[in-house]
Amino acid sequence: MAGVRIDLTRVEERLAELAALHPLDGLGSCRLALTDDDRAGRDLLITWMGDLGLDVGIDAIGNIVGRWSAGADEPDLPPVMTGSHLDTVATGGRFDGALGVVAGLEVIEALAASGARTRRPVAVAAFTNEEGSRFAPDMMGSLVYVGGLALEVALDTVGIDGARVGHELDRIGYRGARPVPGPAPHAFVELHIEQGPVLEHEGVTIGAVTGVQGISWQELVVTGQSNHAGTTPMALRRDAGHAAVAIAAGVRELVSVVGGRQVGTVGRLHLEPNLVNVVAGRATMTVDLRNIDEAALREAEKRLSELVTEVAATERVEIASRSLARFEPVEFDERIVSLVESTATGRGLTSRRLASGAGHDAQMMARVCPTGMIFVPSRQGISHNPAEFTEPGHLRAGVEVLADVISTLAADPDPGPGRAGAR
Amino acid sequence: MAGVRIDLTRVEERLAELAALHPLDGLGSCRLALTDDDRAGRDLLITWMGDLGLDVGIDAIGNIVGRWSAGADEPDLPPVMTGSHLDTVATGGRFDGALGVVAGLEVIEALAASGARTRRPVAVAAFTNEEGSRFAPDMMGSLVYVGGLALEVALDTVGIDGARVGHELDRIGYRGARPVPGPAPHAFVELHIEQGPVLEHEGVTIGAVTGVQGISWQELVVTGQSNHAGTTPMALRRDAGHAAVAIAAGVRELVSVVGGRQVGTVGRLHLEPNLVNVVAGRATMTVDLRNIDEAALREAEKRLSELVTEVAATERVEIASRSLARFEPVEFDERIVSLVESTATGRGLTSRRLASGAGHDAQMMARVCPTGMIFVPSRQGISHNPAEFTEPGHLRAGVEVLADVISTLAADPDPGPGRAGAR
Repeated sequence: MAGVRIDLTRVEERLAELAALHPLDGLGSCRLALTDDDRAGRDLLITWMGDLGLDVGIDAIGNIVGRWSAGADEPDLPPVMTGSHLDTVATGGRFDGALGVVAGLEVIEALAASGARTRRPVAVAAFTNEEGSRFAPDMMGSLVYVGGLALEVALDTVGIDGARVGHELDRIGYRGARPVPGPAPHAFVELHIEQGPVLEHEGVTIGAVTGVQGISWQELVVTGQSNHAGTTPMALRRDAGHAAVAIAAGVRELVSVVGGRQVGTVGRLHLEPNLVNVVAGRATMTVDLRNIDEAALREAEKRLSELVTEVAATERVEIASRSLARFEPVEFDERIVSLVESTATGRGLTSRRLASGAGHDAQMMARVCPTGMIFVPSRQGISHNPAEFTEPGHLRAGVEVLADVISTLAADPDPGPGRAGAR
Repeated sequence: MAGVRIDLTRVEERLAELAALHPLDGLGSCRLALTDDDRAGRDLLITWMGDLGLDVGIDAIGNIVGRWSAGADEPDLPPVMTGSHLDTVATGGRFDGALGVVAGLEVIEALAASGARTRRPVAVAAFTNEEGSRFAPDMMGSLVYVGGLALEVALDTVGIDGARVGHELDRIGYRGARPVPGPAPHAFVELHIEQGPVLEHEGVTIGAVTGVQGISWQELVVTGQSNHAGTTPMALRRDAGHAAVAIAAGVRELVSVVGGRQVGTVGRLHLEPNLVNVVAGRATMTVDLRNIDEAALREAEKRLSELVTEVAATERVEIASRSLARFEPVEFDERIVSLVESTATGRGLTSRRLASGAGHDAQMMARVCPTGMIFVPSRQGISHNPAEFTEPGHLRAGVEVLADVISTLAADPDPGPGRAGAR
């Protein structure tokens, strides 16, 4: 089929309108989940969906789904769904999440404008609280949508500011009537910025996302003995800071030993009392391990555990560890991954397969339907930051590939691609 | 000569009275330099000095010196001086500094009570702002006393709370009339708690302090690139946190290579943004290097500099370093060190020579007269903390050895020990 023609200016204007609700330095924006800022973004989306004549539904956790059936030959079939989220981190950019939602609207608008007919309906979703910056866990709306988290538990969640999810949904008027878990779509495809440097580094425009890395987060609390840095001989120290440093250095080594796609990061490290002339008595640190391969991730966790035991003995400190998060890797639908690649090629765009290092709503949707994702480059890999930026040409490429992929999936005969509902 | 008999109860009561002015948890106390708390401590000292009939003088930087000439055969000779400081860190104990001042009073009181005659007068000093917690540099009062820092510079020093030294001295009524630099005493001996674990660890009661370690403090600021911990491959990172960790791990190694009495500590380390899932874009850390041997300390500094260069290249980060403090090692007067040892032995007390890892007023006085220090054990080496503690038996031993050493030095014929004034 001929490629769908999209209106890049409309996409950029809508991203700008959303960002303008609570702008941050440069291109940034703040729409923490279920705040007044988030409500303003949702209201804008509802207006746009209404203008497009979509059938808009809001479910019990506040997910917004707009369904376009006007161009569908079989309007009662499960739709091909796209979308993402409107909430941001506190210091967010204008692309993370919002791009996937605005792109979904644009695809429908472009299809409608072209007079195209599809077999199946097309739907665009904005899931509640993907970032998890105010309420844990992240990806809450999509997780509830697929039945992975009970609605009551989600509604009872208390945020970092003491607010409850259920109360905030009521307050902003987005506790909807549609039941959760929601109906499984025919397929789900999400367009998102990469939030990493790989595509830019390799000069590639389209990422065909093969899945999402598994994540293991641990917090370690090291207890030693605080002492004077001048008067305490090295041999008599129980230096919590040095123990933390030895573990952090060891994390880099174990990542190298496990190899492959293993990554590991010590991003948070705090010493007490944190003074130039005092041996730290206590250190708190986090270790973030990720791998697309579950067996390799377990190997990395095992090596970390051995490292912690060894350092505790060598430095004569106590080390308590607890898991902050653990998700197994997710594999996306092979047919959709291939479809993204071939569509990019058909449009004359460079593409490569890559795994997502960040979590996305798509990984939850993958539990109930064939799912894929399209990445476009992030300048310098920067995200969760007002400096987050994707070039207009890359935005266009991403929305157009999304449009073509949705068109193709919407034409699917039964039983459709992959093993719908079998995950 | 027979040992001087001291009244331990009076020493302990005076330490308790000082601590009670602003008590902290347990035995602790807060008397930050030139605050109202410090004034209250000074007022108490002036009262005690008056009760003892001392000739009290306050100099232009607020140092308080009480001179006892009543028992001296030649009252116009330079006195044997003892003393320390009354100021504490924000979370101080009751022994650091205060012990040396209260012990000096006790020595004079004991000598007076025994009717002993000395050749030379005895003086006890309380130096201003030894800790440096509110105003830098530390050991300010003794440094000004010996002419190592110009009075005007000291008076103009602005503290962490924005206050000026000169203004605060006026405010609390302790900007005195005596000129600085002050007159060189015949000798100076300071009793202090060890603030380290060596004496306790070896079961030794008296430390004959041979000198003070040289100190080199550096602050390093590492600038890399903040990135998503999941989406950024290891090879594309410029991880400021990992660079800091690599340097901190390297500090331990270089300390081991330099060997001997070298110690090294990374006590302060801060990552930005300090989040579990973000590769740090910036890290700030301090490195504290100390050695009793200047050549070895320079070797350690050279190795640190090489390490920083190497890590900056390997991790592709920028590292800026600046010196926060640099003091060469100080050697105390050999005759006084031997005198402390022999006095302890004469009293049936165990003793050992050791270098001070911390700075003390005595190291400044060593510039103008033969100087020594006496250490008593600190439980678990803990100091600058309300848990700071020295056993009553050790307090008694320290004050008694101080009394004997002062008696001996006060009997000195001219020209006195060592090379007075030659340092």
